[in-house]
Amino acid sequence: MTALTQLRLPAGERAARVAWARLVEPGDAAAARLVGAVGAQEALHGLDPASALAQRVLPRVGTLDVQRDLEIARALGARVVVPGDDEWPAGLDALSEPPFCLWVKGPLDLGGACSRSVAVVGARAATGYGIHQARELAAGLAERRFTVVSGAAYGIDGAAHEGALAVDGATVAVVAGGLDRPYPAGHAGLLARVAGAGAVVSEVPPGSSPTRWRFLSRNRLIATMTQGTVVVEAGLRSGSRNTATTARDHHRVVCAVPGPVSSSASAGCHVLIRDGATLVSDAAEVAQEVGPIGELAPHKEGPHEPEDDLEPVHRAVLGVLRVQSSTTADDVARQCGTSTSEAVSALGILVANDLVTRDQSGYRRVRRTAPR
Amino acid sequence: MTALTQLRLPAGERAARVAWARLVEPGDAAAARLVGAVGAQEALHGLDPASALAQRVLPRVGTLDVQRDLEIARALGARVVVPGDDEWPAGLDALSEPPFCLWVKGPLDLGGACSRSVAVVGARAATGYGIHQARELAAGLAERRFTVVSGAAYGIDGAAHEGALAVDGATVAVVAGGLDRPYPAGHAGLLARVAGAGAVVSEVPPGSSPTRWRFLSRNRLIATMTQGTVVVEAGLRSGSRNTATTARDHHRVVCAVPGPVSSSASAGCHVLIRDGATLVSDAAEVAQEVGPIGELAPHKEGPHEPEDDLEPVHRAVLGVLRVQSSTTADDVARQCGTSTSEAVSALGILVANDLVTRDQSGYRRVRRTAPR
Repeated sequence: MTALTQLRLPAGERAARVAWARLVEPGDAAAARLVGAVGAQEALHGLDPASALAQRVLPRVGTLDVQRDLEIARALGARVVVPGDDEWPAGLDALSEPPFCLWVKGPLDLGGACSRSVAVVGARAATGYGIHQARELAAGLAERRFTVVSGAAYGIDGAAHEGALAVDGATVAVVAGGLDRPYPAGHAGLLARVAGAGAVVSEVPPGSSPTRWRFLSRNRLIATMTQGTVVVEAGLRSGSRNTATTARDHHRVVCAVPGPVSSSASAGCHVLIRDGATLVSDAAEVAQEVGPIGELAPHKEGPHEPEDDLEPVHRAVLGVLRVQSSTTADDVARQCGTSTSEAVSALGILVANDLVTRDQSGYRRVRRTAPR
Repeated sequence: MTALTQLRLPAGERAARVAWARLVEPGDAAAARLVGAVGAQEALHGLDPASALAQRVLPRVGTLDVQRDLEIARALGARVVVPGDDEWPAGLDALSEPPFCLWVKGPLDLGGACSRSVAVVGARAATGYGIHQARELAAGLAERRFTVVSGAAYGIDGAAHEGALAVDGATVAVVAGGLDRPYPAGHAGLLARVAGAGAVVSEVPPGSSPTRWRFLSRNRLIATMTQGTVVVEAGLRSGSRNTATTARDHHRVVCAVPGPVSSSASAGCHVLIRDGATLVSDAAEVAQEVGPIGELAPHKEGPHEPEDDLEPVHRAVLGVLRVQSSTTADDVARQCGTSTSEAVSALGILVANDLVTRDQSGYRRVRRTAPR
């Protein structure tokens, strides 16, 4: 118990938040409640040594050194962002257990970037199809001035960052460990590029390893700092379904990209769509869901054809005519079930529209340059 | 006008319905209204020669020979089914312009078969993926005692019939032309097999060629004689979207199978799902939508794992342990953000569940036979 009273901290709310990030795991409900109610400093100083929270804090008090944490962040070229800062992503305030602070590295203004952003997430075990779609989707969203937020994992996440970077778009990687612990190791180069052009973000202090719990906690940040989440390939037990569920629970848009039903990598996406997520095929459709009203994707209807403007009877008449041989007006009437005068009138309109020609033995259809 | 008064018909409502099927096109609203109001015989005899309907009928009066139509049907081994017959599919009564009669060939009782039936339809220009899925879906539905109804076209339709036939299931082909005009010609063999084991159905008399209008009219039969329609691959302008729209308008279940967003053959399915159709991955999911309550498909959740039953704190503790090296209880508490006593208690439970072992230097995770 003495350990708690021996805490020595630099003054100020910011330093106290850095301390809390070190002392408890992300999403610790009791700590979040206390800090939310009385502020980070007061929550530390007034912590009841007999509380369950104090028991959780105690094993970590020995490792606490806020001054060193801040120095390490500086050395990494990172900054600490807390609620109230301009850079704080407003969406995080929707969480019942928001992060105590964020470690941020990169030139992007995080708050501004997140104010128009989409999470593009998915399976590590992605297929070539999924990788391609994630890249295309992210590039398309970045071109539409959406920030692409993801988790820097292998597979879909990495492809999403790559897609945004490829078009010089804005991208944010939210990682589960400390900023000095690039994970996965094979994505150290990608993370460096994201930090160089966008932002890499973590809610755990430098030196923290990415545990399973921290991955799940990280997912809630991705889900809420954005206006919507798109899942591109997810197995039935994928973590990205967890991100999608959190997004839905917080009234964010949830979209999923379908794939072959024979692909287990798309099975999680199909379950999401069955459970209410919006099926999306491209960036325009995502933008329509996530963007402000008016950003409407064109409804997919296929090429417009001259016949589309015809009335049903004219279309029926056209339907019985052939390109190769002629048909008399009487035969047209018989075949269409119209009167002869109706048939003649319809044929006249079709001729006037260059859809039909007349010769000595009757009427024939004009061959179209692009046949159906 | 004299021609109308010269009509000579065998007596009876059935014969009069056969006459109407010859005299007007399927879906002729005025004819359907009149026949529905006063009956087929009275509608013929009382037809106002000055009416627009009479003008449509007139060009065809010369071709009318009900006796011959019935003889041809008999020669084809077909029967005429009219409303009120046991075999009449009840679903067709939902149509504002129901068929005047149906020509039916095959051993299946059409009414009974349609009382538990699903339409499986789709693009002629199907891919190998679509063909495979249509066959699998149809086979799975047939095995679940659903009749598979389709249109015998190349591509998805043909694969649906084949899938049902392959498991000795019930299948019905609804065709756009007369029963003596197998269309497409390449499916003459398939149609003969469907007629041999299930039923081939048409609302137009023998000798009628399949026109574009009749294809669209035919689609309304497929959509309403079944309890639901599944679209497996459809381009943006596919006729199967028309079938799906009719099914939706008549409060039937509409399902669609997704595919790669890069495949134009699936684009129509994706639009359907975006517009409210249910995404389905297999026959079980279709049966859940279409079948009576209680026929529930298992919700896809992936394999159950021992950890799924753990409380969050136990899962968090398990998450920080490694297989290769041991961790002390103090370290576990620090890493998980729990008190030391909580960590020790959780570790004890994990050991009791054979998920963790203890050695002299601490705790390690048990290697699982099937790693995630």
